[in-house]
Amino acid sequence: MRIDAARLAQSIEELGRIGATPRGGLTRLALTDDDRRGRDLMVRWMREAGLRVTIDQMGNIFGERAGTERVPPVMMGSHIDSVPTGGKYDGQLGVLCALETVRALNDHSVRTRHPVTVAIFTNEEGARFQPAMLASGVMAGKIALEDAYNARDKDGLRLVDELERIGYLGAEPCVPRPFRAYLELHIEQGPVLEEAGLQVGVVDGIVAIAWSRLTIRGVQDHAGPTPMRIRHDALVAAAEVVGGVRAIARELGGDLVTTVGNLTVQPNIPNAIPGTVTLSIDMRDPRTETLDAARARLDALVRAACEREGVRGELDHYWRVPYTPFAPDVVAAVERAAVASGARHRHILSGAGHDAQYMAAIGPAGMIFVPSRGGRSHCEEEFTAMDDIAHGATTLFLAAVDLAERV
Amino acid sequence: MRIDAARLAQSIEELGRIGATPRGGLTRLALTDDDRRGRDLMVRWMREAGLRVTIDQMGNIFGERAGTERVPPVMMGSHIDSVPTGGKYDGQLGVLCALETVRALNDHSVRTRHPVTVAIFTNEEGARFQPAMLASGVMAGKIALEDAYNARDKDGLRLVDELERIGYLGAEPCVPRPFRAYLELHIEQGPVLEEAGLQVGVVDGIVAIAWSRLTIRGVQDHAGPTPMRIRHDALVAAAEVVGGVRAIARELGGDLVTTVGNLTVQPNIPNAIPGTVTLSIDMRDPRTETLDAARARLDALVRAACEREGVRGELDHYWRVPYTPFAPDVVAAVERAAVASGARHRHILSGAGHDAQYMAAIGPAGMIFVPSRGGRSHCEEEFTAMDDIAHGATTLFLAAVDLAERV
Repeated sequence: MRIDAARLAQSIEELGRIGATPRGGLTRLALTDDDRRGRDLMVRWMREAGLRVTIDQMGNIFGERAGTERVPPVMMGSHIDSVPTGGKYDGQLGVLCALETVRALNDHSVRTRHPVTVAIFTNEEGARFQPAMLASGVMAGKIALEDAYNARDKDGLRLVDELERIGYLGAEPCVPRPFRAYLELHIEQGPVLEEAGLQVGVVDGIVAIAWSRLTIRGVQDHAGPTPMRIRHDALVAAAEVVGGVRAIARELGGDLVTTVGNLTVQPNIPNAIPGTVTLSIDMRDPRTETLDAARARLDALVRAACEREGVRGELDHYWRVPYTPFAPDVVAAVERAAVASGARHRHILSGAGHDAQYMAAIGPAGMIFVPSRGGRSHCEEEFTAMDDIAHGATTLFLAAVDLAERV
Repeated sequence: MRIDAARLAQSIEELGRIGATPRGGLTRLALTDDDRRGRDLMVRWMREAGLRVTIDQMGNIFGERAGTERVPPVMMGSHIDSVPTGGKYDGQLGVLCALETVRALNDHSVRTRHPVTVAIFTNEEGARFQPAMLASGVMAGKIALEDAYNARDKDGLRLVDELERIGYLGAEPCVPRPFRAYLELHIEQGPVLEEAGLQVGVVDGIVAIAWSRLTIRGVQDHAGPTPMRIRHDALVAAAEVVGGVRAIARELGGDLVTTVGNLTVQPNIPNAIPGTVTLSIDMRDPRTETLDAARARLDALVRAACEREGVRGELDHYWRVPYTPFAPDVVAAVERAAVASGARHRHILSGAGHDAQYMAAIGPAGMIFVPSRGGRSHCEEEFTAMDDIAHGATTLFLAAVDLAERV
């Protein structure tokens, strides 16, 4: 039993055209017209594969292939939204490998005891509406539906209004639903598999993630006649924080990664001393204690930088997810499938958050990684070789058949 | 002979309402609807004061009070556009003190040999269209009319289209015109006068200004699974440059001021390593040699910061104006007027560029400063006490009468 790699490649190509950028990447922000077009295509393909499609209150799309018994399904899924100028693999690859699994089940007329469901989650990236993984978060009961509905993009548009506008405000309750297993195939987004010459990663869990937001208020003034001695420049303090956030990772070492990805300046003109700067701090590590130590250093860093420049800093630690271990039986099924597929593989941790993280809170979940060339993702150069994808998809297929229990 | 301080205060109040911000400041960007309303009010007041109003091809407004002879006028002016969330004094104060001078001449039925002209220059701030002092630059022959017309704001709107839209695309050629003297009253925008307890600054000249733009290209990637060792983060390099630009002023000392006022990050989301950062560098000093030394340090700083992070930096030194000395006879007339007005005064340099800088290239120019509370400007807290304004306006009035030669 095999998946059809050529058909899968064709689907990746076709879905990747919706929101394609001139340089080979993808810009398909959640709930935009391009997202709608991508959803419409997926729904058509899911129906053509015989799936019963339903949409829930968060716009999550489910397509179910019936099992021989009325028991919880094996769900496979990911997302089809992207970051701005992102790549054609992050998200949509997992959805399309799930669809290919169903198509292959159909090809081989495989019947399973458990239903097999393809899931597409809304707004995973958090690029348009924050936080990331918003819809799986609602489904897992970790984010209130009302809060998710009221999330606004940078133009002030509400998520619920955009859901309705593109026709994906469904009727099904977005609540925890029982499943036998949740499986998500995803690109690694790091260099580990490629550097080791491997094709598949059996994901043991997701690192702990902490997001903070810092607002620095200095004194906006004219860049010319204001002597250096009386300046309180929000950007000078912010720059010290950016350098210090990098130093935290260098000093604590290990697997800790620290990033300032977002920074905005006001009034942001060449001849005004910046009055206000806001910036994000993203810190991740498999170990909670390391993340605690990093946060303590961040607190001290912000205090020192703001004091030195005579500015006020407000640091808000607004989002934190602990280390998420995946279900041992699901990880074991993925490992068996990787072996059976003939893929060169290893166990690995995910450095990125995924919908699987929230799904793990309400049922047995696991993930399959395929390599990212140069470790790169969230950029137009994002790339995974088709041979690696085929091994990953076969692993997903075999794990799904295993967990759904072929009859 | 006196100016009417109450009437002047009333005009400052009234013009300041157009584009007023809730916190007492002003947002009246060039060629917006608020700019149009401000212009309309000024034109009405100028006509009510008996001035013959003309508009040139750059939307500069001139209002002439005839002299007894057909000789070049004494011009007095400034601008009425503001920066975003700027103050009610930067620009409009000079225009209104010029208007008050004309009103006071009328009150006292003063006749002068030279005409006396009120001038309002378009887009002085450079907040909406770059560079700053665009229209006086065209008038001085330093900027091509076509380049100015094609300047675009951040939404891509062209200056010439916006001029036409608000009804201020005039017919008069925008070319050097002869004048006996150009006088500009302006807030100091620095702390010198206030700290010394003075009311008026007799401005000897304007410091040299150098503007550079730096684009840093790193490698956009995911903030989670990308290990620190393979990162090329454009913002980390940019932060080192921001800190280094501050250090240049500290190390070279003296009157040198250095500012990074504008910094933008792409893609600017919390979970992506910044791929591209652009930032502005503004450096000013009375001495050309100091500015040369600062630029050499900036070049070395950018090289070192980019090399350390493994990113590419493109540094463009795109605008530089040399030290501008004002005309000795105009400075002397301002000094005599300051003495006669009874103002506590001193000689001072301007750290900010002004239209007077370009006007000095085509005729005898000078400036009068009034104090800025706390040295602050380009912010809503910008403030000058009415008593200081009255002393400054009287100085302007007396200098204008002196230079225009009362008959």
